[in-house]
Amino acid sequence: MPSDPLESLVLENETKIVLLVLDGLGDLPDVERGGRTPLEAAHTPNLDAIAPRAALGRILPVAPGITPGSGPGHLALFGYDPVETQVGRGVLEALGAGIELQSGDVAARANFCTVDAAGTVTDRRAGRIATEVCERLVGRLQAKTARLEDVAIVLKAGKGHRFVAVLRGPGLGGDVSDADPHQEGKPIPPAHALAHAATADKTARIANAFLGAARRELARDHPANAVLMRGFSARPRLRTYVERFKLRAAAIAAYPMYRGVAELAGMDLRPVGEAPEDAFTEAANVWADHDFVFIHVKGTDMAGEEGNFDAKVATIEAVDLALPRLAALAPDVLCISGDHSTPVPVRGHSWHPVPVLVHAKFCGADGAERFHEKTARAGSLGTFASKDLMAVLLANARRLDKFGA
Amino acid sequence: MPSDPLESLVLENETKIVLLVLDGLGDLPDVERGGRTPLEAAHTPNLDAIAPRAALGRILPVAPGITPGSGPGHLALFGYDPVETQVGRGVLEALGAGIELQSGDVAARANFCTVDAAGTVTDRRAGRIATEVCERLVGRLQAKTARLEDVAIVLKAGKGHRFVAVLRGPGLGGDVSDADPHQEGKPIPPAHALAHAATADKTARIANAFLGAARRELARDHPANAVLMRGFSARPRLRTYVERFKLRAAAIAAYPMYRGVAELAGMDLRPVGEAPEDAFTEAANVWADHDFVFIHVKGTDMAGEEGNFDAKVATIEAVDLALPRLAALAPDVLCISGDHSTPVPVRGHSWHPVPVLVHAKFCGADGAERFHEKTARAGSLGTFASKDLMAVLLANARRLDKFGA
Repeated sequence: MPSDPLESLVLENETKIVLLVLDGLGDLPDVERGGRTPLEAAHTPNLDAIAPRAALGRILPVAPGITPGSGPGHLALFGYDPVETQVGRGVLEALGAGIELQSGDVAARANFCTVDAAGTVTDRRAGRIATEVCERLVGRLQAKTARLEDVAIVLKAGKGHRFVAVLRGPGLGGDVSDADPHQEGKPIPPAHALAHAATADKTARIANAFLGAARRELARDHPANAVLMRGFSARPRLRTYVERFKLRAAAIAAYPMYRGVAELAGMDLRPVGEAPEDAFTEAANVWADHDFVFIHVKGTDMAGEEGNFDAKVATIEAVDLALPRLAALAPDVLCISGDHSTPVPVRGHSWHPVPVLVHAKFCGADGAERFHEKTARAGSLGTFASKDLMAVLLANARRLDKFGA
Repeated sequence: MPSDPLESLVLENETKIVLLVLDGLGDLPDVERGGRTPLEAAHTPNLDAIAPRAALGRILPVAPGITPGSGPGHLALFGYDPVETQVGRGVLEALGAGIELQSGDVAARANFCTVDAAGTVTDRRAGRIATEVCERLVGRLQAKTARLEDVAIVLKAGKGHRFVAVLRGPGLGGDVSDADPHQEGKPIPPAHALAHAATADKTARIANAFLGAARRELARDHPANAVLMRGFSARPRLRTYVERFKLRAAAIAAYPMYRGVAELAGMDLRPVGEAPEDAFTEAANVWADHDFVFIHVKGTDMAGEEGNFDAKVATIEAVDLALPRLAALAPDVLCISGDHSTPVPVRGHSWHPVPVLVHAKFCGADGAERFHEKTARAGSLGTFASKDLMAVLLANARRLDKFGA
């Protein structure tokens, strides 16, 4: 069902929904541990108490076989079509760096590189300079080039040679080519407009002026004597949770990237520490003023990326241990799932479906003994697109009207 | 996911994929055999050794309830949307007859019929003449009408009264009406252009000239004294496996129809005998120069069409017996499935989902004891569209980049 018909069915209600996202939750059976997944191996008495009374299933973030990045993974969970609603690399990078983007901002990924006297790029990563060097250089560029024409330049250092550049001012647009040869042995191409639009022209002009200023400023900073920029993108204007779902939503997350995507959906942002109990305590704090609380737990994904089975189990157990705090709020709908799978053996995001649990008055009790990848496979929710999860949650919250007479 | 985003994620890799298609594999439980399907009843020790370590699931060739022909069934397996990518009847018939279609060729299904002195069709099947008679008459027509204007006419006899006609020359198109009244008691309507296009006009003109010439040649050959033509269609230009997936693909098939569809996808064609061991030996021959090997086994479908449970079991067992030869190639991804179901009790193609097995390093071991319709139902791959199978295979072959940051 397209998003518009869904929106037309949304009702007001007093009910409250919790979406608890264990990042990269889904995993694969480990043959050396009796074919168990981390979720299966974890000791989760509190989750086990909910599981039999819940409906289980699996969600596909984008499509079969497609491995999502964190952006599409969360956009889908939030009910946006992750293919139609593409958020540019620069915007995601800026959100991940904790820059609060404003409407109309254009963000780009940037990094230091090495050019020779002829202007040819000899090292696209500037010898992989240390993060401290990057921070110092970014500080100098920021001081020197805070504004070009009527556009403010906002820079933020990342890891190693990487940083983020945000252009903030009137009349900018994201349709601009990369100022990056994408290989060594070539000069840096100037950014140029990819569309016949004054906004793209202006953005390219400002970007090129910034690159020129950076080149002059860095002339004696070999190997970091020039800058590349790519992934220019404008902060998209998404319809918000209030507009779409009549939900006052809060996002509780330790990492800026996830708060950033939530901010695109119009959620109130609540930075917290990484411990699940802190996140759940914050949920109690926002409870009175919100109808929807998104809580992000990063540890499961990090453990998966590191190929650390035990660390993934430990994160799941820490969530379980703190779960009574969340359950004490008595949400009308409690949903536990992930934005994608990050299986320990893969050591990265993957394409495998993600287990999902929904507990609500009318969810239907599947009677599964526990919640994990295998029980989810046989669950009453079936396997469906992540972008449709919000409809399931709204339905369980009795916030959707009948479709048709 | 639309095909373009998928293509944009395709990576180069050294991995190799085998797609083993047992035509019409899916079946229904036979109550007289303890509710077992042929795949369940077959003795398959080699498949049984792979099954627990594989991911199982089911694929839907077109949509729930839709019974596919062999063309759509294979196009979907090959990753083309079988509804958007329609290949005309004439083209499928020509490919099935083993005619190597060239770009720009227009093909039509043709057959002999009987007309009376007034030109009224009295028998659309010319008294169902014998195949030998058809071959002789087609030979005469071919000798008499090898060329019309600058268009070569290529004919190939089929079974009974049927044959295939291919028009090969510049400026032809498939948008042409049938020269077939579709019922008896009416005259043969001349072919006419269905679009305002010079290509359609020319094709209709050539087709009508051919029909006229055939009528004169066959005047004394009652009951086969005229020809009908229908399903005019141009060989479509599909984006090939190299273009879409960066895969050098080979198609190993005994029957021309399946090589024909594979040829549309740009696969290298390898005709072989019907024995699975011959097909698997040929896979070894093409192994070094290809990244993707499609192997087609026809026996399962033929047995299903005949309603012969034991013959279907025997074909499955023959595949299993030869399987070590294929496994010895150690493909990075081994997929076993079918283009559609041809259940023994149905005695024809059907709409039932088709079991699929995927074995790869990160497929996830479902731990199923065996591979058949029932274990597939509970498999981790779930039930998904056949057209998405290629994405799953590419993902398992580590040939897909992450979608979004």
